[in-house]
Amino acid sequence: MDIQNLLEDITGAVQPQIGQGQVAGYIPQLGAVDPHQFGISLVTKDGEVFSAGDAHVEFSIQSISKVFALALVLSSDGDGIWKRVFREPSGNPFNSLVQLESEDGIPRNPFINAGAIVVTDRLLSLTGDAAGAVRALMRRESGNALVDTDHRVATSELESGHRNASLAHFLASCGNLENPVDEVLESYAQQCALAMTCQDLALAARFLASNGLGAEGELVLSPAQTKRINAVMLTCGTYDAAGEFAYRVGLPGKSGVGGGIVAVVPGKCAISVWSPGLGRSGNSVAGVAALDEFTTRTGWSVF
Amino acid sequence: MDIQNLLEDITGAVQPQIGQGQVAGYIPQLGAVDPHQFGISLVTKDGEVFSAGDAHVEFSIQSISKVFALALVLSSDGDGIWKRVFREPSGNPFNSLVQLESEDGIPRNPFINAGAIVVTDRLLSLTGDAAGAVRALMRRESGNALVDTDHRVATSELESGHRNASLAHFLASCGNLENPVDEVLESYAQQCALAMTCQDLALAARFLASNGLGAEGELVLSPAQTKRINAVMLTCGTYDAAGEFAYRVGLPGKSGVGGGIVAVVPGKCAISVWSPGLGRSGNSVAGVAALDEFTTRTGWSVF
Amino acid sequence: MDIQNLLEDITGAVQPQIGQGQVAGYIPQLGAVDPHQFGISLVTKDGEVFSAGDAHVEFSIQSISKVFALALVLSSDGDGIWKRVFREPSGNPFNSLVQLESEDGIPRNPFINAGAIVVTDRLLSLTGDAAGAVRALMRRESGNALVDTDHRVATSELESGHRNASLAHFLASCGNLENPVDEVLESYAQQCALAMTCQDLALAARFLASNGLGAEGELVLSPAQTKRINAVMLTCGTYDAAGEFAYRVGLPGKSGVGGGIVAVVPGKCAISVWSPGLGRSGNSVAGVAALDEFTTRTGWSVF
Amino acid sequence: MDIQNLLEDITGAVQPQIGQGQVAGYIPQLGAVDPHQFGISLVTKDGEVFSAGDAHVEFSIQSISKVFALALVLSSDGDGIWKRVFREPSGNPFNSLVQLESEDGIPRNPFINAGAIVVTDRLLSLTGDAAGAVRALMRRESGNALVDTDHRVATSELESGHRNASLAHFLASCGNLENPVDEVLESYAQQCALAMTCQDLALAARFLASNGLGAEGELVLSPAQTKRINAVMLTCGTYDAAGEFAYRVGLPGKSGVGGGIVAVVPGKCAISVWSPGLGRSGNSVAGVAALDEFTTRTGWSVF
Repeated sequence: MDIQNLLEDITGAVQPQIGQGQVAGYIPQLGAVDPHQFGISLVTKDGEVFSAGDAHVEFSIQSISKVFALALVLSSDGDGIWKRVFREPSGNPFNSLVQLESEDGIPRNPFINAGAIVVTDRLLSLTGDAAGAVRALMRRESGNALVDTDHRVATSELESGHRNASLAHFLASCGNLENPVDEVLESYAQQCALAMTCQDLALAARFLASNGLGAEGELVLSPAQTKRINAVMLTCGTYDAAGEFAYRVGLPGKSGVGGGIVAVVPGKCAISVWSPGLGRSGNSVAGVAALDEFTTRTGWSVF
Repeated sequence: MDIQNLLEDITGAVQPQIGQGQVAGYIPQLGAVDPHQFGISLVTKDGEVFSAGDAHVEFSIQSISKVFALALVLSSDGDGIWKRVFREPSGNPFNSLVQLESEDGIPRNPFINAGAIVVTDRLLSLTGDAAGAVRALMRRESGNALVDTDHRVATSELESGHRNASLAHFLASCGNLENPVDEVLESYAQQCALAMTCQDLALAARFLASNGLGAEGELVLSPAQTKRINAVMLTCGTYDAAGEFAYRVGLPGKSGVGGGIVAVVPGKCAISVWSPGLGRSGNSVAGVAALDEFTTRTGWSVF
Repeated sequence: MDIQNLLEDITGAVQPQIGQGQVAGYIPQLGAVDPHQFGISLVTKDGEVFSAGDAHVEFSIQSISKVFALALVLSSDGDGIWKRVFREPSGNPFNSLVQLESEDGIPRNPFINAGAIVVTDRLLSLTGDAAGAVRALMRRESGNALVDTDHRVATSELESGHRNASLAHFLASCGNLENPVDEVLESYAQQCALAMTCQDLALAARFLASNGLGAEGELVLSPAQTKRINAVMLTCGTYDAAGEFAYRVGLPGKSGVGGGIVAVVPGKCAISVWSPGLGRSGNSVAGVAALDEFTTRTGWSVF
Repeated sequence: MDIQNLLEDITGAVQPQIGQGQVAGYIPQLGAVDPHQFGISLVTKDGEVFSAGDAHVEFSIQSISKVFALALVLSSDGDGIWKRVFREPSGNPFNSLVQLESEDGIPRNPFINAGAIVVTDRLLSLTGDAAGAVRALMRRESGNALVDTDHRVATSELESGHRNASLAHFLASCGNLENPVDEVLESYAQQCALAMTCQDLALAARFLASNGLGAEGELVLSPAQTKRINAVMLTCGTYDAAGEFAYRVGLPGKSGVGGGIVAVVPGKCAISVWSPGLGRSGNSVAGVAALDEFTTRTGWSVF
């Protein structure tokens, strides 16, 4: 298969979707992004890189960071985190308080905001610098030492982040935070505000396609834990459209409101797509279309 | 009717209930209160005062303060507050986030915590010192210039008040707070931490029984607004046991987790009872029993 | 007070509201009613009758029948029914399944459909003919031996009554029905399909204003039970607008989707209003306005 | 790989789990099943069959039938069914009314009861005999012409099936049933009451592992539709434990309260396990353990 051609064909095929949907507008830094952009990168499990479109433009990875924070916690802390967060699909929007309340402060899964805040809290306890730990992982795996937090985005998110503050205080009221609310929220905002390109992200996610093996030949995660992260991504990675994403795309994937999506073909490759326009469930319209096209053309769905 | 005898008879009749239930334990200052106490005071609409039991022991009025904050907002600001808070019974526990989320940040009524936080926010905007305004009202109506906030209670509530912080941030995320979250929460904690006796409270609530007429002959509230506060108390004043309270007692009433309850016989009198042991819905066990006894003996239910 | 003049004044005052809202359209027999009608009747506790407007036009009493079924069950069976139905306001629309599910098949109160179906089920067990028992009570209290079920309405409701069938099967699945689902639903449909005039209804409701004393000098209900039905009406009688009704009108009341409302001034009188146009919560727009006008003019709110 | 040995090893490994959990007791026919049974069968995409344990004992397939009904509807009716049922994980127990109500009668997915009732309704419209169509498919694919409905089970389910009747009437009230409630419920009960062995079931599910190719070389479903059914099974196939099942087992699977589970390794094989003891979420305890063991030993998770 000529992967470079494939990515260029996909880029062509999704032109009508680029610019569709709404750019996330809850902070000005995200709202100002030009919606008419689309990038795609693919990294094979052996580290070959292919890119097309705006694959070298940085964007805010937002919730995609949740996968990497979880990987770090699982790798250094084992299964303990699963006492503090479930791994079931949510059925509710990503920042819902309802299930949190009815289930006594145990978030449904690590990819809704409440669950990700718990993961970041744990990573903060383990490392003393949760966002720094995620950043270091991203730099090492992407081979790009310049990967960094966009501090204007982080600051802006903190200032307008009443919904996350509400979630974090609720978790604290249930005894499900180890660190002070303010410190957890700051770590979380910084982790989400990492700015990366499609190519950076696909490289960083390669270990999910290679049984846990990282860029420098090290084991980022055990094969078993890697499979499990992929399972959680498939059932919970795209907010309350996880069923739809599994149905259309058929791959483990994690999206962010910056318009990025990382998807994994276990044993084969990691793919990253980006286009800022979001559909009703908060996933990139052109990004989902591109991944749909990808599995249709390659047959590389897990199903 | 010999009211003094009546109150003493009631005090005798509820002895078996005194000490039943659980003292609120979420902050040490409330948890340390001796549960074997019971007080009752009645103030006629003309200002005659009757008391029995521990009616001169101070306790933390907590949610009872919500009635007085609402009265101040209605009196100086009219019906505007009803754009920011509904006046329907909740059907959920007093600090629930569920309805708040499903109804876009408009609390169900001014007597659940979320609604009371909105009322305090408005009172803060109107006066610059919400807790001070409630305290001034209490002092004037009770004639007791020593009524004051118990600052250890207020501080302790703020420190452990993650649930209220969660509610307040949620309200802010919906655009339903005018002031900074921290300032609103501090005002709210200080207002709830007012320490008063049964007699103070019954005197302070007298205007609710007298078509709005206060201790100094002034109109605290218009007759129409007074009726309306009584209506809201009857349908929403005792958390998710409002139906039960209406059924058993048949009077407008407002309870607090300090174990106090204020009830109103419109056109006749205000009654205050206090006993720290709380039932499952957060209302004083002996207090509800005493009010039940009161309406049974007098026939002074509104029904 | 000249009550006849009062009723005529009110009839004049609410002319702008008559015809507003939507006529219930879920069955053709209700949907065909001319919305430009309004009637009002008042019966004093001593049995004096006053009427104005279309007070002698029959309409379908629908949910108003729930009050009378409950009175019959309480009078012959005491407090046992409260093990099978709560008496708390619902916070949800009148035919909601949500609370029923989360509370294991115990309906929130006897005036939402699920609760009324449980009451009818009990009345069926007690009498063998629940609708007949309600009809007999209506005939005796109204003095109108011609009060009867509109069988076209009953049949039509049964045919289209999937929502009530869903509720009844759910109750049965929780073990909260004593009789076969089909028999209970038929009784319920017939009871709701009683056709009565404002004057009939006000006469029938008189016992609620007279400590339980009925038209023939008999005790329909004990004074204590009468107060309690009034309490449940005030907190739960007007669907999820009970707080609003208490706030605006300040009287115990029960509405039906046929556009009727019965309200009670304890110790003074029963009032019945009717106008087919319903507001968003299912209560007659002109009917609520008329009762608002009534308490404003008379000051006879319970608060 | 020596598959026969593998199945026998797994059967040995799960001995401690056999008999754990609770046998479904809502109808006597299911409650009477001996819990100390366990069977496993595997059919390769090319039709080779392997079995161990009680793989030739018939059991009630219950909800597993939902997969086959859905396959029949998709194959003859295309994507139209997705207008009447979503394909998102539920987050609520399999027979919940809550989401149905909040989402206007569109069930969350075709594998919760409400969704399966809609699918059966459609199959009834398409074929005139929904249960017969499922039975015919089962007979053809399993090669066992004796596969049949256990009529005592079907009758007993109908008699005690108030929860399903509640769901069906609710769907009807939302206009989401095409056929009379009673006919749909009877079809549904008969389809769920099919009695089959592990070997029958694994053979019948083979097409899900072979891109839709059936036992007689025919296309049961298109390759694309086959992938999609597998996707829906993975995200929604095991009630509210779908995330857990994906995490532990990592295969598309569908369970039934009779204790059976069908799982699919796309492109490789179909597996059927059975053991009557159910865990808290309604899935066979020993069955899930066996599939966990299977993917651990083979590495054949989709992740």
